[in-house]
Amino acid sequence: MTSLEEVLREAYKLAVLSEKEVREVTETARSAKALVADIVSSAGISAEVDVYGSSARLTWIPGHPDVDVFVVLENRDVKPESVVRALSEGLTSRGIKWRLRYAQHPFITLSAGWCEVDVVPCYKINPGERPITAADRSPLHHKFLAERLNDELRRDIRLLKIFMRTVGVYGAEIKVEGFSGYLAELLVTYYGSFLEVLKAAALWRPYRVRIDPSGRSAAEKFKAPLIVVDPVDPDRNAAAAVSLASMSTFILASRRFLKRPSLSYFLPRQGHAVRHLSVVEVIFPYPGEPPDIVWGKYKRAGRALREQLRECGFRVYRWGVESDEKTHVSLVYVVDQTELPPFVLHRGPPVYSDDVDKFIEKYVAEDVVGPFVDGIRVYVIKRRRYVSVVECISRKLGAGNYTIRVNAYEGALVQKNAWIT
Amino acid sequence: MTSLEEVLREAYKLAVLSEKEVREVTETARSAKALVADIVSSAGISAEVDVYGSSARLTWIPGHPDVDVFVVLENRDVKPESVVRALSEGLTSRGIKWRLRYAQHPFITLSAGWCEVDVVPCYKINPGERPITAADRSPLHHKFLAERLNDELRRDIRLLKIFMRTVGVYGAEIKVEGFSGYLAELLVTYYGSFLEVLKAAALWRPYRVRIDPSGRSAAEKFKAPLIVVDPVDPDRNAAAAVSLASMSTFILASRRFLKRPSLSYFLPRQGHAVRHLSVVEVIFPYPGEPPDIVWGKYKRAGRALREQLRECGFRVYRWGVESDEKTHVSLVYVVDQTELPPFVLHRGPPVYSDDVDKFIEKYVAEDVVGPFVDGIRVYVIKRRRYVSVVECISRKLGAGNYTIRVNAYEGALVQKNAWIT
Repeated sequence: MTSLEEVLREAYKLAVLSEKEVREVTETARSAKALVADIVSSAGISAEVDVYGSSARLTWIPGHPDVDVFVVLENRDVKPESVVRALSEGLTSRGIKWRLRYAQHPFITLSAGWCEVDVVPCYKINPGERPITAADRSPLHHKFLAERLNDELRRDIRLLKIFMRTVGVYGAEIKVEGFSGYLAELLVTYYGSFLEVLKAAALWRPYRVRIDPSGRSAAEKFKAPLIVVDPVDPDRNAAAAVSLASMSTFILASRRFLKRPSLSYFLPRQGHAVRHLSVVEVIFPYPGEPPDIVWGKYKRAGRALREQLRECGFRVYRWGVESDEKTHVSLVYVVDQTELPPFVLHRGPPVYSDDVDKFIEKYVAEDVVGPFVDGIRVYVIKRRRYVSVVECISRKLGAGNYTIRVNAYEGALVQKNAWIT
Repeated sequence: MTSLEEVLREAYKLAVLSEKEVREVTETARSAKALVADIVSSAGISAEVDVYGSSARLTWIPGHPDVDVFVVLENRDVKPESVVRALSEGLTSRGIKWRLRYAQHPFITLSAGWCEVDVVPCYKINPGERPITAADRSPLHHKFLAERLNDELRRDIRLLKIFMRTVGVYGAEIKVEGFSGYLAELLVTYYGSFLEVLKAAALWRPYRVRIDPSGRSAAEKFKAPLIVVDPVDPDRNAAAAVSLASMSTFILASRRFLKRPSLSYFLPRQGHAVRHLSVVEVIFPYPGEPPDIVWGKYKRAGRALREQLRECGFRVYRWGVESDEKTHVSLVYVVDQTELPPFVLHRGPPVYSDDVDKFIEKYVAEDVVGPFVDGIRVYVIKRRRYVSVVECISRKLGAGNYTIRVNAYEGALVQKNAWIT
């Protein structure tokens, strides 16, 4: 076993930003900011244009920069949509490629050099003031962190983000339901280092953790697996996006990494697929909607279909939504078997209950075993309605534009865990 | 639908004892009594010899007489074994065939005419006196019932016994765990008729029924699905043998008979077997022990094996012990399938529990899916240890004199209920 020090020494090498990368990202951010400021002022919109987020703090994951230019409006009569319109016209007239995208509000993504840049309109707010759009807090978040960071904390933030990405909990989007970049930065700032975050997390218990970096706790009102009060807004849980599974995964990974340190927690490796499992996939064409909407919809649909499978008699060992966010989105179920035995035990009411008569009258004329009594209840053994997993799913989904695929899947849901030690 | 009156009219015909049968049974009982009295007194044993039980009260099921001759000892220094010895010697010297049998005590069965006769030694006790052997109460039971019975009650007792036999709850022996003949007679005497017993039973609820025909209730001390205080012994629950399933079956049958009266409740019909069910039988040679001992042993063994099957991953829809009480006794299990899918979901501890480390360390080097997190727990999908039902059973039972048979059974456990309406 490699010692914690040795592993960390190697891991930190993966968290280094090269001078070249820093230079290129900084230059990209600078030119994008100048471009956006020019377009916005040409359009007669009064706004402060600046770069906030990980690119401004040097806390992105090496090789995965994320440049965000904010158009901060003071006048609340100016709508974010007007900014987006002005930007799209200005960019087009300058021959720069751009895409319109949506989070909670529309924003523009453009290619302005070494990497893509998101341009996000928002309103200026003061600390404690109620935000109008979800992006309004970003300048305050940046200010809070920028005042506290030093080179060591920045390095540890990058390492924590890599760790979270490897174990699959990095990102607040619906796809992941994990830790946002801002939350990772808050945690390192709060606990003091990468290692201290992990040491704390190894002892966390879902629904029992309340962290309040600002010390102005209003934490009681939140109900979530993890609570980290946003220091710029005590009404907000900065960890609200973290699902129970993401919280639990991070606890487990922290615990195991400290027990058996390994570079595997920082390397994007795939586990090998275990063969001969029963897997059914329902594959849909990717709909023309923003990812968060699609992931949310298909996670809900996936849960409903999981229930249907259970009602049909399948045991669902594991399931998930998978998508390339371009061509398809699929619901994947690892089940005990794809064809069920033809008979099922059907439990009826207690013999003394008035419902027993309905039960008996339903089955007395059918080709069943029984009705018979076991304990205080009446039972029959009857033929199953649906024996095949394909039939069970088709019944639930009805006609539609989807494909059902059986036992062809070799993705993450049937793989060995590649990072755990 | 046939009316209750019509059905009862037909059913009562099945409960009639022909004059011929009564004459033959009475003659058999009379001659057996004379024979036994002669042998006992020749052996110098002082005892009252008399006929008690259903043959003395004309309450046997037509065609199934049951003659019991009691050797009632006043001197408690005389052991039942001496009576049995004297009887066996006397019968042998007279060239009469006999068999030694055991209930709680040894008794003799002889062929003394039209039907077999059981000769049972017991001690004379007075009402309220503590019995020494289980048979000691029989003379008191007879006295209690004989004083109360009339022709109508006798007829209704026979009908109730037929009803109970059809639905499978007649008999206090371990095989059935049902209603003794005496209990059936008590119930008719207490409620006043066959129909009133059924009307009462249709409203029974297991563990909530306490009947005390003697009115000297000490019923609180009993804990059983059905409590009927023995009028000759307030310390005894005359329904102690009635299992929860027998009690429930009788409730259900009573309820349904009253809703949809049918002669099916009085006719010994077989249901047809439902085909293609998965059934596994474990067949043992019949051991040289009294039936109650054998049934008790194999019911216990059967329950343990049912647990083993569940632990292996089989769903046991229904099970039972079957035997001809001569050549074999078998454990029969109706299961969901005889071969399980090769993989199983294995649930581990919560991520924050100290046990999680042991779990991870056990599976981290194995060819499993995961370990992965769902909710707050860690899981793996792993290969099953036993996939075939035969292997699972052999593992539990080890080497031994038994045969495992798969999917060849067509007996009661896979049949349609033949009486329910």
